[in-house]
Amino acid sequence: MRTLAQDVPKHLDQDIEVAGWVHRVRELGQVNFVLLRDRSGMVQLVFGDKIDFTPETVLSVRGRVQANPKAPGGAEIHPTSVTILARADQSLPVQVNQDPDKYPLDVLLDHRFISLRMPKIRAIFELQSALLRYLSEFMHSEGFFEMKTSKLVGSGAEGGTGLFSVEYFENRVYLAQSPQLYKQGMISTGMERVFEISHAYRAEKHDTPRHINEYVSFDVEMAFIESELDLIEFERRLLDDVFTKVGQNDQSLLDLWGASVPAAGAMLKAPIVGHDEAKDLVGKLTGKKVFEINPEAERVLSDWALKEHGVDLVFINDWPRKKRPFYTYPTADGLKTHSFDLIFRGLEITSGGKRINEYAMLTDALPKFGMSLEGLGAYPTIFQYGCPPHGGFAIGLERLTQKILGLVNVKEASPFPRDRKRFTP
Amino acid sequence: MRTLAQDVPKHLDQDIEVAGWVHRVRELGQVNFVLLRDRSGMVQLVFGDKIDFTPETVLSVRGRVQANPKAPGGAEIHPTSVTILARADQSLPVQVNQDPDKYPLDVLLDHRFISLRMPKIRAIFELQSALLRYLSEFMHSEGFFEMKTSKLVGSGAEGGTGLFSVEYFENRVYLAQSPQLYKQGMISTGMERVFEISHAYRAEKHDTPRHINEYVSFDVEMAFIESELDLIEFERRLLDDVFTKVGQNDQSLLDLWGASVPAAGAMLKAPIVGHDEAKDLVGKLTGKKVFEINPEAERVLSDWALKEHGVDLVFINDWPRKKRPFYTYPTADGLKTHSFDLIFRGLEITSGGKRINEYAMLTDALPKFGMSLEGLGAYPTIFQYGCPPHGGFAIGLERLTQKILGLVNVKEASPFPRDRKRFTP
Repeated sequence: MRTLAQDVPKHLDQDIEVAGWVHRVRELGQVNFVLLRDRSGMVQLVFGDKIDFTPETVLSVRGRVQANPKAPGGAEIHPTSVTILARADQSLPVQVNQDPDKYPLDVLLDHRFISLRMPKIRAIFELQSALLRYLSEFMHSEGFFEMKTSKLVGSGAEGGTGLFSVEYFENRVYLAQSPQLYKQGMISTGMERVFEISHAYRAEKHDTPRHINEYVSFDVEMAFIESELDLIEFERRLLDDVFTKVGQNDQSLLDLWGASVPAAGAMLKAPIVGHDEAKDLVGKLTGKKVFEINPEAERVLSDWALKEHGVDLVFINDWPRKKRPFYTYPTADGLKTHSFDLIFRGLEITSGGKRINEYAMLTDALPKFGMSLEGLGAYPTIFQYGCPPHGGFAIGLERLTQKILGLVNVKEASPFPRDRKRFTP
Repeated sequence: MRTLAQDVPKHLDQDIEVAGWVHRVRELGQVNFVLLRDRSGMVQLVFGDKIDFTPETVLSVRGRVQANPKAPGGAEIHPTSVTILARADQSLPVQVNQDPDKYPLDVLLDHRFISLRMPKIRAIFELQSALLRYLSEFMHSEGFFEMKTSKLVGSGAEGGTGLFSVEYFENRVYLAQSPQLYKQGMISTGMERVFEISHAYRAEKHDTPRHINEYVSFDVEMAFIESELDLIEFERRLLDDVFTKVGQNDQSLLDLWGASVPAAGAMLKAPIVGHDEAKDLVGKLTGKKVFEINPEAERVLSDWALKEHGVDLVFINDWPRKKRPFYTYPTADGLKTHSFDLIFRGLEITSGGKRINEYAMLTDALPKFGMSLEGLGAYPTIFQYGCPPHGGFAIGLERLTQKILGLVNVKEASPFPRDRKRFTP
């Protein structure tokens, strides 16, 4: 019966069995130490003999637990038997027991199965696992249906650019950029409230710290809303719940990165600023002329929100129509839209809005965007047979992870990121 | 403030607001009825006047709730005001208020956004949403990490056949058949216990009631196991938990299909039969010579398990080596494997096993399967730097849904199924 490293201190003066990876070897002659790493943490092994296994070797160890205030958790194991479960080559391309900052990101990604062993890097994906859990729990508890829709589509919801093409038997299909068609379609069928957490694909050539070509999109869509304000209110509650749970359960992961989440309740006070008002505000704060909400403006607005409202998230709504997708519900004058972005610590992590739900309004909108019904496949049929007012939003999982931990590059928040040059391992 | 249909009976003699889709209209002259459908169920509206909206129109209705034992839930609404939120074309390609059995599957799939409105079809995906929730809850509660790994890979884990190819900038990549590489890789990094619920792709041309080309794979992998029996024991507990929750919470969905799940605890007694023993058993039961565990044999074995063990699920282990993938851990004599399938009501819903975790054993195995290290990309590197004994399994979400509800074709259990000819909507 195996004991996890974190539970070793509970077994003082008992014989137990542990198993894990050799994290570090320290040989002092008469007494030699091995730090053994498992999924729960580290445990110190103390040997009198010379140590004949190298870092990353997998061991199963039986031994007596003894108190030692200097050991992790205040206890260490004096082994009586050691079994080598799997040997490790000595030529580690990345030293697992070093700080990842010592290596360029490309080296860490080239040797991903090794760099993921580094506790600080593993913490990124432990946090991501927790985020997946919290997001899903909240949505189910709010009566949303979880769906898994096809990622192989006949055309793009955003109008056909930026798609990866797939040879599909005798045909050509595309990888979905988002479940936009399907989440609106499910609304129209009467499910009313749906969410999906699945991969999405963007065939965009840019290489920036904010973009990857394959990402995990958390998509939400809900019926019978009045305006984008209903969506903002919902996302406030959702993220407040997520941040609160991270603060309660995952502080040790945050600590490895010197990170923190907004305090419980803070997210509920995240301000809402109109698009034009936001430009004026950035102009006033920077003393510069502002032409658009660019990455610099997003940083200025986050800092302002933190100073004025105590939370480094800010919603921007009332976007001009020409800056949003064709399916966005326009304001009465047709110039603006019932849409919003959410900026978190200087990065857009959400885009959303109320959608056009009337067939006539859709056909009226398309020419304004140089589009036609024909290019949209089954999308327009959703609105022919009774589709209620609705809207939704999406959160990029990697961006959310990145901003919580303060990672420099969004690629760090994907276990196996894909960019123009990188498609292995 | 909107009231859901299911809650209307709680508001007798009060004025409330409901919203939903016109499911059925019944005009009797002096008194006319509309059955209004929302995500929670149905509510009857009673009008004195002639009714001027057609099925599937979306309404918002205010009115007084009155008791009526003949109405759904024992209450009905006498409207005082009606707002049409979205009109429906009269030319419905599928009648939503009819039984889906009246239409061929192809018609239901061609008009998917309409057929998904049928309460019996919607129930399939309400159940699927519940299954996603229960699977995920159980795994997190058991300390597994949820991961989202890339679906764009350089080569196939199963040896290169049956892959869809993707034009990826200047290169060609493939859609992942399974997260096999990544789940074993994550084990090797020290996460020890991982799961993923994501899409998987098989470019196989067959068109059968058991196959789709894009499916949702629930993948599990765990380290420090002894043999496939540890995995079977885990899957028993997992499915027992899922079936128990379905029985407790989702009986109304099962009722629409005349379906049931194994009783709480029954799954823990699902028998384990060796591959050769299973063939003999089928031979004895059918009086026929049995050459392999084919679909007919799977049905016979399920019936046997139900009769002898009270549960219509059966594990088959000890598979011959040549019938399993190259990465399967062989028995000591090299002829069989530590692998298993799970058969549920005559259909294989799981394949799994212990994996080879030693580099030397892997290089020894590959030529037996006509394979080489070179074709496997980064896969072999997992085993170079200390990879503990491990194994895992996968459950096809659509097959699980299909067998719980007794659906004839697995395509019915995918909201937007993909086959050789079908890639819309």
